[in-house]
Amino acid sequence: MDRGRLEAFSDGVFAIAITLLALDLAVPRVDTGGLPAALGHQWPQYAAFVVSFAVIGIIWINHHGLLALAGRVDRTVLALNLVVLLAVVSIPFSTRLLATYLTKGGTNAHVAAAVYSGVFLVMAIAMSMLFLAITGDRRRLHESLEPSALRAGYWRFGIGQLVYLGTVGLSFVSAPLTLAVHLVVAVYYLVDQLRAPTAA
Amino acid sequence: MDRGRLEAFSDGVFAIAITLLALDLAVPRVDTGGLPAALGHQWPQYAAFVVSFAVIGIIWINHHGLLALAGRVDRTVLALNLVVLLAVVSIPFSTRLLATYLTKGGTNAHVAAAVYSGVFLVMAIAMSMLFLAITGDRRRLHESLEPSALRAGYWRFGIGQLVYLGTVGLSFVSAPLTLAVHLVVAVYYLVDQLRAPTAA
Amino acid sequence: MDRGRLEAFSDGVFAIAITLLALDLAVPRVDTGGLPAALGHQWPQYAAFVVSFAVIGIIWINHHGLLALAGRVDRTVLALNLVVLLAVVSIPFSTRLLATYLTKGGTNAHVAAAVYSGVFLVMAIAMSMLFLAITGDRRRLHESLEPSALRAGYWRFGIGQLVYLGTVGLSFVSAPLTLAVHLVVAVYYLVDQLRAPTAA
Amino acid sequence: MDRGRLEAFSDGVFAIAITLLALDLAVPRVDTGGLPAALGHQWPQYAAFVVSFAVIGIIWINHHGLLALAGRVDRTVLALNLVVLLAVVSIPFSTRLLATYLTKGGTNAHVAAAVYSGVFLVMAIAMSMLFLAITGDRRRLHESLEPSALRAGYWRFGIGQLVYLGTVGLSFVSAPLTLAVHLVVAVYYLVDQLRAPTAA
Repeated sequence: MDRGRLEAFSDGVFAIAITLLALDLAVPRVDTGGLPAALGHQWPQYAAFVVSFAVIGIIWINHHGLLALAGRVDRTVLALNLVVLLAVVSIPFSTRLLATYLTKGGTNAHVAAAVYSGVFLVMAIAMSMLFLAITGDRRRLHESLEPSALRAGYWRFGIGQLVYLGTVGLSFVSAPLTLAVHLVVAVYYLVDQLRAPTAA
Repeated sequence: MDRGRLEAFSDGVFAIAITLLALDLAVPRVDTGGLPAALGHQWPQYAAFVVSFAVIGIIWINHHGLLALAGRVDRTVLALNLVVLLAVVSIPFSTRLLATYLTKGGTNAHVAAAVYSGVFLVMAIAMSMLFLAITGDRRRLHESLEPSALRAGYWRFGIGQLVYLGTVGLSFVSAPLTLAVHLVVAVYYLVDQLRAPTAA
Repeated sequence: MDRGRLEAFSDGVFAIAITLLALDLAVPRVDTGGLPAALGHQWPQYAAFVVSFAVIGIIWINHHGLLALAGRVDRTVLALNLVVLLAVVSIPFSTRLLATYLTKGGTNAHVAAAVYSGVFLVMAIAMSMLFLAITGDRRRLHESLEPSALRAGYWRFGIGQLVYLGTVGLSFVSAPLTLAVHLVVAVYYLVDQLRAPTAA
Repeated sequence: MDRGRLEAFSDGVFAIAITLLALDLAVPRVDTGGLPAALGHQWPQYAAFVVSFAVIGIIWINHHGLLALAGRVDRTVLALNLVVLLAVVSIPFSTRLLATYLTKGGTNAHVAAAVYSGVFLVMAIAMSMLFLAITGDRRRLHESLEPSALRAGYWRFGIGQLVYLGTVGLSFVSAPLTLAVHLVVAVYYLVDQLRAPTAA
């Protein structure tokens, strides 16, 4: 299978998943206080939407950088890519789960935040395995990679997994704080990855 | 990252957002008066659907004209493009918000129209920034732009932002009038932009 | 704007609209009689789904044949294409409207069938206008068309509009009969158009 | 019609169908027991989602292998491909049907599993017919196929249909067992097909 086909299919899934996020933004019913209050009351929906939008945007940029390294798409690459996409299409679900329970407090908020972080962790692990599969076998590489770029990639993916693992733990401390950390991480990655487009 | 990839991903998001608009057209329940009356009663849904469809169609045409100017896609272009897409995927939400409250009158209708116009304003600002980012740095330009075409672009994007800012204000006067103005603006832009495909 | 871009965007809209049709297939609640009876009771949903799927499939094939004639995409072509897409994205709505009211009988069933047929009529008119716009101006044609092929196209699009106009009228006689006629027309067109791929 | 266009349209439908699967993952309401228990109670949804995701992923890989054999896309190929896509877009519906009734027991669970398996059977039959149509006519073949590869294809598609036919029968024994068998079959196909990318 040629790489272009795999990229086009993956791009389609990314584009649909990022657009479906907004499908869960519900029109609020107005009680006493009017629409402004009702919209304000929905802030967890908007916050979770924006964070998930940023995360999917970043995965998309990363994913292209990763596949651009591959010269040959074989069974391992296809299978790992399907796991990445499985995590990506699950993000709208984990986002509405978090949006629903974020401000409910207690165990439910913690569990919702842990599921939300857990989906990102699965995605990070699958991306790392895809990176290892592509860079670990010379026949899969488009062109040989600088050892320094390779090492930078190992570090970046390794730290990414640790960060997402940390947010799973943080979920049991505070759900809103976990969402805030995800926003900070997303902004950091966006700036960082865009800074080094050749390594991305 | 090559431009074609960014265009394909953006096109996917545009195509999904414009199609999802129709997902919010609900089948009416029939009370006394039958289906024709029930459908007629839903006119805000159809009006908001058509206006939003036209606006997304226009942004799509504009967006291509804009990216066609870019020879190189770097971090600033990618980040600003994500903001444009964030506004685009929010349009189905703001459309159903306006459709729900358009004829309810009072503050709620005004606020819904202001959110609707506000999403377009964010989109116009992001598009303008994208234009400035691409045309303001020679290394990003595909080929040098005529100073007159550049000036025309400045004016067009500047006026566009003012118009959408004006509709945010108009929202607090009349929600239906705001929707009507958006329709007029959309038709005007459609005619205007199609008239000058080289500058678009 | 180059033709490939317009085709890719239109293809995206067609693919999403045809897939969204199945989103309206609801899981039935089981009353007395069990799931088989409940599924059987939903036959209007499945019938309307299959017919609309076939119609969108045919429009897609037709649409490609049409755009393949165009050498240049200008403002008229873009605007008429947006009207075609507006009709296409409306089909999931008109389909669920018909599915809901098909077996309710009386005026409501007639009106639902008329809306269903009306959306197809708008689509047929927009397609005809697109055909006229492309073939009526030599500068828009990819290569000159045989007069006989041109005449065949005029007849085909003209008859198509008459057929869909006829189904709007038929809607007020019988909604189920109207759906059956749409199925027959769709199958006929599918066979007919596939028989003459060069003229399609 | 050129093959690339058909592939792009089909890819769009596959990408949307696979992403829409996750749209049916509902946020659970919490009763006594909290969110973990409520999420655990939804295991049929997650199980059906993962199995359907794997099946669509496999059909997508298979579909590409199939179309890659075709040198010419004519009416038979287009029509059979539309039947394949009709089955694909029906998978999200059959998935939520099974997820709803899987643990309800009795006839309803059996019927839901039979519908679920039946959609896969229709898909397998349409894929087999597409394979026969492409390989059975030399004018449709991109390049002549080894007789051994042809025979392997016959066996593979023939067995695939028998397996799915068997799961329809198994549905009336046990719905959960049927889902488990679908998972095993999907994993087997994924490994098997990826093992022989040239024959896929």
